Amino acid sequence: MSRRARVLELVESKGLDAVVVLSQSNVFYLTSSDAPSAAILFRDGRLVALAPRLEYLRALEEVGEGEVYAYAKFFEPSEYEKVVPGDLYDALASLLRQEDARSTGVVGASLEAKQKLAEKLGGELADITKEFTMLRRSKDQEELRLMKRAVAIAEEAMRVAVDSLERGVTEAEVLARVLSVIARRGALPSFTPIIAFGEHSAHPHAKPSSRELRDGDLVKLDLGARVGGYCSDITRTFVYGTPSPKQERLFKAVLKAQQKALEAVAKGMPAKQVFFKAYDALKEEGLHTYFNHGLGHGIGVDIHEAPTLNSESDEVLVENDVVTVEPGLYLAGYGGVRIEDMVLVLEGGYEELTRFAKDPVI
Amino acid sequence: MSRRARVLELVESKGLDAVVVLSQSNVFYLTSSDAPSAAILFRDGRLVALAPRLEYLRALEEVGEGEVYAYAKFFEPSEYEKVVPGDLYDALASLLRQEDARSTGVVGASLEAKQKLAEKLGGELADITKEFTMLRRSKDQEELRLMKRAVAIAEEAMRVAVDSLERGVTEAEVLARVLSVIARRGALPSFTPIIAFGEHSAHPHAKPSSRELRDGDLVKLDLGARVGGYCSDITRTFVYGTPSPKQERLFKAVLKAQQKALEAVAKGMPAKQVFFKAYDALKEEGLHTYFNHGLGHGIGVDIHEAPTLNSESDEVLVENDVVTVEPGLYLAGYGGVRIEDMVLVLEGGYEELTRFAKDPVI
Repeated sequence: MSRRARVLELVESKGLDAVVVLSQSNVFYLTSSDAPSAAILFRDGRLVALAPRLEYLRALEEVGEGEVYAYAKFFEPSEYEKVVPGDLYDALASLLRQEDARSTGVVGASLEAKQKLAEKLGGELADITKEFTMLRRSKDQEELRLMKRAVAIAEEAMRVAVDSLERGVTEAEVLARVLSVIARRGALPSFTPIIAFGEHSAHPHAKPSSRELRDGDLVKLDLGARVGGYCSDITRTFVYGTPSPKQERLFKAVLKAQQKALEAVAKGMPAKQVFFKAYDALKEEGLHTYFNHGLGHGIGVDIHEAPTLNSESDEVLVENDVVTVEPGLYLAGYGGVRIEDMVLVLEGGYEELTRFAKDPVI
Repeated sequence: MSRRARVLELVESKGLDAVVVLSQSNVFYLTSSDAPSAAILFRDGRLVALAPRLEYLRALEEVGEGEVYAYAKFFEPSEYEKVVPGDLYDALASLLRQEDARSTGVVGASLEAKQKLAEKLGGELADITKEFTMLRRSKDQEELRLMKRAVAIAEEAMRVAVDSLERGVTEAEVLARVLSVIARRGALPSFTPIIAFGEHSAHPHAKPSSRELRDGDLVKLDLGARVGGYCSDITRTFVYGTPSPKQERLFKAVLKAQQKALEAVAKGMPAKQVFFKAYDALKEEGLHTYFNHGLGHGIGVDIHEAPTLNSESDEVLVENDVVTVEPGLYLAGYGGVRIEDMVLVLEGGYEELTRFAKDPVI
């Protein structure tokens, strides 16, 4: 079933006349375009996308079956534009009124946005963000195909990064090569790649710098690509030279924690329990105080999306969730080790999407 | 006066005990770090930054004089961490109560964030976002130094992009070279560069693709770098080959519109009037319906910040505003021309920060 058909099913099951979808990744999910600011899906299956004037032409090309309108307060339209006057909320309200949509749902709206829209419509909206988010979690074959391509490009970039590790190279130079290969493959980075040498690797989100690579450095590489709107995300840590006993201890602990967590990944497993498999494994080694972030996150149109695999999560893994599993240890002034893979959640287990070798020695 | 001293002056002038600053670019403005989620500046000048645990070490290194705390719900801290229990709002409320801050201001908070914080504090907060935004508009010498470096890197990237324009090169390949040079210079792109050939240039925000360069193509290049947290932004359009009469007409109209707008730029000028100088110049040529976006925007820590130079703006230019002036014309299925410069607003005029040649012929 297409993404739009799934959203339509949701609209019907909630007994709504229409749903207003806001926020870029939700709009992309419904329309296959990030050009519109919002889209409305009516109960009869009709889709209307609303874009600012400067994004109108792109929305027109990218949105499949459906109508596209621009919205603007001040304008004299060109011959190829259909413009609805007013701001986004004026435009949404006038399109909903025109279709006589009475019971309307909303997805991805901030409190401000909900209040504005309710005011223009003269009535409350049913917030079905939670249900929409559940739809987004289960990836279909087309989504998985795009994510696998995004993984392949990320793993090629990882290979290029590893191959460029020679004494004296800077983090910035490795970043340049990573960005190049991602762009050449027709993708965009799904986030600013993290290229961290030595003590910089103690920062989970280090910023690339002019730091040069030295013998014995830990090297943390975290990168991803976005293909057709879908993200990949992978982290590997290496040692430039022969690993010290301390480095080996960190690696072994992180690998074991990841393995323990992965063994727990399956449809029906509470996300929190997966987190604690890794946490407890690190605790056995007396290293858990250096694991200062969650274990992982869902990934798809957004680099971070539902579910969250941490100590607070109340989510349960569902079939075709794609999640990262990325324990890490960070020692101030010394360095850090993180190993991150993307896995597809299945009945009774998981499929590894990322397969780059985890050997710390390059 | 340092940025922090300016914020302190604002706190004093409003008679507040403290101000809570939220949202990444505001927090960066106050703390010189994008690692914290929030910061509090007390009336006595003390600064407290709050970061999630994984950003704690980076915040500690980047925030100048001031205290840094992590916040977390579930944690066992390592020996180097100071952790406040709870979520961000719990942590802010407990730090404010500890200091007995009664009258508190807030900057950059969403309606949700304001409600949560007010609830935890048991009282309303004075929203001084508007005043804080005014502070951010007037760039000081240090900010201008960083922005000029960001411009120099952007113009170097523009040169590399122009030099790579040969028949058959793809948009993706030019993107790869642009990203490389920005990274090698120790910067990051301030946004995903726009590299648009031929009919793609009709999209103001085109996405790079595998489209190959052909004779007679319009080539629109829009790129920027971020240095020390500050952005640059420049657009040039070229013709690959000899410009056609239609291309020449578009270029001349856009250049004239930009010139008319620039002549109006000065301290005290309403931003809306600057927009209409360009708009009216395009209207004289009968082309204004193809100018489908605002004329420009403030730029600094954010790639788009106050003021906005469009038909709705109620802002007046102030001394040391840095703004872009970027009229454009976009013809569906044909292509577009945009020319964008960054200028520093002065008493009685402006200083051009971007100086890359505007000749369409390469």
